[in-house]
Amino acid sequence: MSELLLSSVREFVKRYVEPVAVKVDREDWYPRELVRKMGEMGFLAPMAEGLNLLETSLILKEVSKSSGSVALIQDAQGELVTEPLRVYGDEKEIVEKLSKGELIGGFALSEPQGGSDVASIRTRAERQNGRWVIKGKKMWTTQGLYADVFIVAAKTGDKGLKSITTFLVERGPCTKVDKIEVMGNRGTGTAEVEFNGCEAKSVIGGVDGGWEVVKYALLVGRVAISAIAIGLAEGAVEEAISWAQERELFGSKLADKQGIQWYIADAVAKLSSLNTMLKSFVKAEDVFKDEGRIAVLKYVSTKVATEVVDRAVQIMGGLGYAKGSKSERAYRDVRLTRIGEGTDEVQLGIIYKVLRREGLQYFTDNMSI
Amino acid sequence: MSELLLSSVREFVKRYVEPVAVKVDREDWYPRELVRKMGEMGFLAPMAEGLNLLETSLILKEVSKSSGSVALIQDAQGELVTEPLRVYGDEKEIVEKLSKGELIGGFALSEPQGGSDVASIRTRAERQNGRWVIKGKKMWTTQGLYADVFIVAAKTGDKGLKSITTFLVERGPCTKVDKIEVMGNRGTGTAEVEFNGCEAKSVIGGVDGGWEVVKYALLVGRVAISAIAIGLAEGAVEEAISWAQERELFGSKLADKQGIQWYIADAVAKLSSLNTMLKSFVKAEDVFKDEGRIAVLKYVSTKVATEVVDRAVQIMGGLGYAKGSKSERAYRDVRLTRIGEGTDEVQLGIIYKVLRREGLQYFTDNMSI
Amino acid sequence: MSELLLSSVREFVKRYVEPVAVKVDREDWYPRELVRKMGEMGFLAPMAEGLNLLETSLILKEVSKSSGSVALIQDAQGELVTEPLRVYGDEKEIVEKLSKGELIGGFALSEPQGGSDVASIRTRAERQNGRWVIKGKKMWTTQGLYADVFIVAAKTGDKGLKSITTFLVERGPCTKVDKIEVMGNRGTGTAEVEFNGCEAKSVIGGVDGGWEVVKYALLVGRVAISAIAIGLAEGAVEEAISWAQERELFGSKLADKQGIQWYIADAVAKLSSLNTMLKSFVKAEDVFKDEGRIAVLKYVSTKVATEVVDRAVQIMGGLGYAKGSKSERAYRDVRLTRIGEGTDEVQLGIIYKVLRREGLQYFTDNMSI
Amino acid sequence: MSELLLSSVREFVKRYVEPVAVKVDREDWYPRELVRKMGEMGFLAPMAEGLNLLETSLILKEVSKSSGSVALIQDAQGELVTEPLRVYGDEKEIVEKLSKGELIGGFALSEPQGGSDVASIRTRAERQNGRWVIKGKKMWTTQGLYADVFIVAAKTGDKGLKSITTFLVERGPCTKVDKIEVMGNRGTGTAEVEFNGCEAKSVIGGVDGGWEVVKYALLVGRVAISAIAIGLAEGAVEEAISWAQERELFGSKLADKQGIQWYIADAVAKLSSLNTMLKSFVKAEDVFKDEGRIAVLKYVSTKVATEVVDRAVQIMGGLGYAKGSKSERAYRDVRLTRIGEGTDEVQLGIIYKVLRREGLQYFTDNMSI
Repeated sequence: MSELLLSSVREFVKRYVEPVAVKVDREDWYPRELVRKMGEMGFLAPMAEGLNLLETSLILKEVSKSSGSVALIQDAQGELVTEPLRVYGDEKEIVEKLSKGELIGGFALSEPQGGSDVASIRTRAERQNGRWVIKGKKMWTTQGLYADVFIVAAKTGDKGLKSITTFLVERGPCTKVDKIEVMGNRGTGTAEVEFNGCEAKSVIGGVDGGWEVVKYALLVGRVAISAIAIGLAEGAVEEAISWAQERELFGSKLADKQGIQWYIADAVAKLSSLNTMLKSFVKAEDVFKDEGRIAVLKYVSTKVATEVVDRAVQIMGGLGYAKGSKSERAYRDVRLTRIGEGTDEVQLGIIYKVLRREGLQYFTDNMSI
Repeated sequence: MSELLLSSVREFVKRYVEPVAVKVDREDWYPRELVRKMGEMGFLAPMAEGLNLLETSLILKEVSKSSGSVALIQDAQGELVTEPLRVYGDEKEIVEKLSKGELIGGFALSEPQGGSDVASIRTRAERQNGRWVIKGKKMWTTQGLYADVFIVAAKTGDKGLKSITTFLVERGPCTKVDKIEVMGNRGTGTAEVEFNGCEAKSVIGGVDGGWEVVKYALLVGRVAISAIAIGLAEGAVEEAISWAQERELFGSKLADKQGIQWYIADAVAKLSSLNTMLKSFVKAEDVFKDEGRIAVLKYVSTKVATEVVDRAVQIMGGLGYAKGSKSERAYRDVRLTRIGEGTDEVQLGIIYKVLRREGLQYFTDNMSI
Repeated sequence: MSELLLSSVREFVKRYVEPVAVKVDREDWYPRELVRKMGEMGFLAPMAEGLNLLETSLILKEVSKSSGSVALIQDAQGELVTEPLRVYGDEKEIVEKLSKGELIGGFALSEPQGGSDVASIRTRAERQNGRWVIKGKKMWTTQGLYADVFIVAAKTGDKGLKSITTFLVERGPCTKVDKIEVMGNRGTGTAEVEFNGCEAKSVIGGVDGGWEVVKYALLVGRVAISAIAIGLAEGAVEEAISWAQERELFGSKLADKQGIQWYIADAVAKLSSLNTMLKSFVKAEDVFKDEGRIAVLKYVSTKVATEVVDRAVQIMGGLGYAKGSKSERAYRDVRLTRIGEGTDEVQLGIIYKVLRREGLQYFTDNMSI
Repeated sequence: MSELLLSSVREFVKRYVEPVAVKVDREDWYPRELVRKMGEMGFLAPMAEGLNLLETSLILKEVSKSSGSVALIQDAQGELVTEPLRVYGDEKEIVEKLSKGELIGGFALSEPQGGSDVASIRTRAERQNGRWVIKGKKMWTTQGLYADVFIVAAKTGDKGLKSITTFLVERGPCTKVDKIEVMGNRGTGTAEVEFNGCEAKSVIGGVDGGWEVVKYALLVGRVAISAIAIGLAEGAVEEAISWAQERELFGSKLADKQGIQWYIADAVAKLSSLNTMLKSFVKAEDVFKDEGRIAVLKYVSTKVATEVVDRAVQIMGGLGYAKGSKSERAYRDVRLTRIGEGTDEVQLGIIYKVLRREGLQYFTDNMSI
């Protein structure tokens, strides 16, 4: 990423994200204006603005250093909705409005009975009078409370993953949303969404072609969530380092105690290794080919980032447990990253599957030099 | 503990704690009535009612399986306030009212500038007209918002730990409390408490004898917090096991997947080992002699319990991240146990100190058979 | 265990085990004389001498603090061979000779194709002229190289675990032993043993009753191996503490560095918790009832002991990697304990099975008080 | 690295390293002929042959997949001796003979009283009749038993690191070597080396300029040791995967059990992340500038590789504990990597120091894109 872009992101975060970060979390407040502003700047759905996936990830990382919630909004709007629509859909105008933050989008995939098990979704689409009509209930839809449009995955037959179709559906009388309160990433409007016979606006990716669309969204989303995890950890460690340099305890600065220095150095080492992995793995052009490596990235980075944030909380002590500190917020926010967009265990399953298909060298010879 | 007592605790928890557990957390609601009821039953300050420390711990464990907040209230009221007053003070009537839940108590030890560093506290008590007058600011006082009386640790000279005196101070115009919002254990009224020239009601444990009182409270409190950690983990694991047996994913019950079975078995093994340690370590009569073992108990049980709860959250998936599940609550609640009443690192320091003084056998030959 | 017994064990270890501990490992040397001496003292198969399982475990722990190999010899001779013979067999004379160290015994259970999968063993016993004739190949038999008698598990039918019979077989022309070289616990005579049509001396535990005999041996053996793991860790930590107090680096003693103090304290805390678990879990009379708790004991103690030894090696630095140090030896020895007599994963399977059958309280309410 | 080079390394390893790998370890046998052959091929000191540090590392990784000992010989000969001589010395002929394997070299830095504490070394060099005469005792010198020449670090004054000079010293009557037996990496000729008044052949890097030479050797050596750790883990995991696909247990292939699949996937994920870090961190030209990142690389990769090898051993079961398996060997070999050329704790110290000097961005913004 160009230094210019990076510093403009940092400036933006400092000016617009940082001041609302606490409010978004404490009041479970959706920052509608900020979303529009990110849209104007091209930070909301960067790939629709010509940036690549790595640049997108680095933007997310910068934002999540300040607010995991705002970064997750970006991820939901950009990677999960705008991006698959851009690649697989025909609705250029909607893509543009999403990218600009004029419309809000929700990715309606998971269902109450089964998170990552796409083949078993129960939402169905049926052909009625030349239109597709959708009926079913979705869970965990980020921005679900505020979304103007949804990508909805539905069954259009009985052949498992081969009978999944994704649709663009507009919010309306046929949709019903219910807030889901969650531990962290608050203010993102996570909701249960019911589609009670909604007519689809359009099919995305062709009838029965939904699995590819979903998979594309998830792959891009997993990269995004990895970047968010790393950013959360980085923000928390920054805070903990400052605190350790300031706080006196038992006669000396925290930062002068060897035990604390080792904690910090260990955290820094982990952050360093995660950043490298992010930058190396997100270079290739074809996310489908990278499915195994993206699973590695998500599995390792979200797990290690969670450990790093835990360390930051411990260094912060009571403040790390109190509202207002970045570490406290990050502790709750980062825990999602090991669950959302495919749990740790789903990633392990993918890695094993790719190992069987491609062999160990796929994972170990993963960069040309 | 007698089976009878245990089953009466379980019945009580089911009837009175369970129904308010979510409300206490979500609304940051202090369950004043429940406190009184616990007082009536003798569960609020069990040692004042003749139970021993292990029985007290097992009560706390049962309560925290349902609500970490209610258990922490009990700990603050019972172990941190009533118990040192009972042992070191002269105010029998107040002890009784605390034990019955007619008065609420707060243990005012930590200060803004240094959590566990008692030698460095800045709150001072000065002799004026034959009374002790207290001036200073305390942090992290559980029940601080609602306390009628406080135990306050203050400096009565300049000889470090040898110049600490503990006082009983009543809430009044001279006290000012400010809410501190925290990640978990919500509804416990955690507060910053200012003493602006309060006259002490009495001295506890003699002038300059406060360090022993504080240490006694902390030792008893560390056992209590260990029991709470274990209870939180047990509650979360129970929930996760039920969920795994019910939830279908990818064509079979979660509980039928070997990976999940290993997760559960690992969590159960850890719970089993923690319970054993709790029951073995809390047998001796003299907590001062057990300082090193209590530090082991707190260090190991809070750390392992935190891992166990993390595992439960992971098994629960999205629900483990959503408000309403016990695992979500336990994840936030249990994190305090590694910070409060002496961080992990403070325990390590104590263990090392005792090792130097008593030798390794103090820790390894820790039970007669 | 009485102080008297304990101190006589310690004296014995100092006088007879410590001096040969390095030689046993370095030269892969079987200490035949020491075995006899342990037999004379009643330390070789303590349960045959009237001690209980916990006393037996504590003897093993003391021995393994000095030599894991010698302790494993004791385990193989005492818990795996003498003890099941004593309980299920009729050969009192042989039990006595084993207990005295006049005969050496080998427990021939595992086979090349499957370690812990008893139902699938291929060794067969057939009835010929009124005698049972055994044919098959066994692996990993400790003391196999030197054993005078073997307990051999063989199939006497096709009903899986219901067709297992255990036999007493004497070494002779029909037996062929081949050394297996292993990472640690050297000098214990681990071997592959072939039975080429050996006539059994007697049936142990009745025809088709072998699974109970095997299970009994494994349950007692798992307690033993847990005690050995803890002893290895304790020996290594003792060494590391001494070294840290003596070694200067970067201007101060290792033991004066906070980071190292925390390492030591963490190791001590773990040792303390393991010792407690050992002493609490090995109290009941009926090992079959304790199957789940024994699995917990083995799973937790061998895993944690392995971590503790790793820490000791790290504190020792180069010396921890060099032959001659106890930590180096313990590092290799302790690794077996997570594999032998049922791997970690086998224990997890048992724990899960018992959880389903007995419920969580079996594990958490595991001690009366 | 070019595909051509990589495949020629792999061919070489298969043909010359693999067949002697077990013998080198079991018989503690120094493969003198192989060293010469590696020299001929340009694999012994690749940087002297024009390859860069990353290419060198990848060669080491390939070799260590087969034999950690042979890779360590290469590291000692190439990175620790030939490379600093090449960069800081004047002896072109010796560099060439070392690179070709005609001479063997030993890096004599550590001393009995303090591994990594270079400022405290006691070996002294004194000026006598226009020559430098060296007196002192060194420890842990790889290839010490067989070395024809040594780089020796000695004190030439009393200004700590500013009074270190490195010398080239030839083996002769003034040198005395004693074998040190170690846990793993056997056959590498690790020795204690005494210099009893040896005349130095030449000064390397100028009088009092030794600290830079030492640091250069250690930086290059840390990269090498990281590559070796990763290679050891990769070799062990390859073996474990094959075994899991072949071995039947409890009615199915190990590789068909979900728990084992997760173990394998976790190991693969870690290997993947380590390989990426290696390739990314070893790109820059100036190892001194990369000191902090090299410390991260060593700290993280040796630690994670150790975990991965442990996992491989566990999957292998008994075979993972028996001589002859790659996992057994790797388990012992890899443990050195967390101690040699700066322990984990030394790396943490370096990371913290660089953090203070350069800030967090040095570690997190570590690659341009």
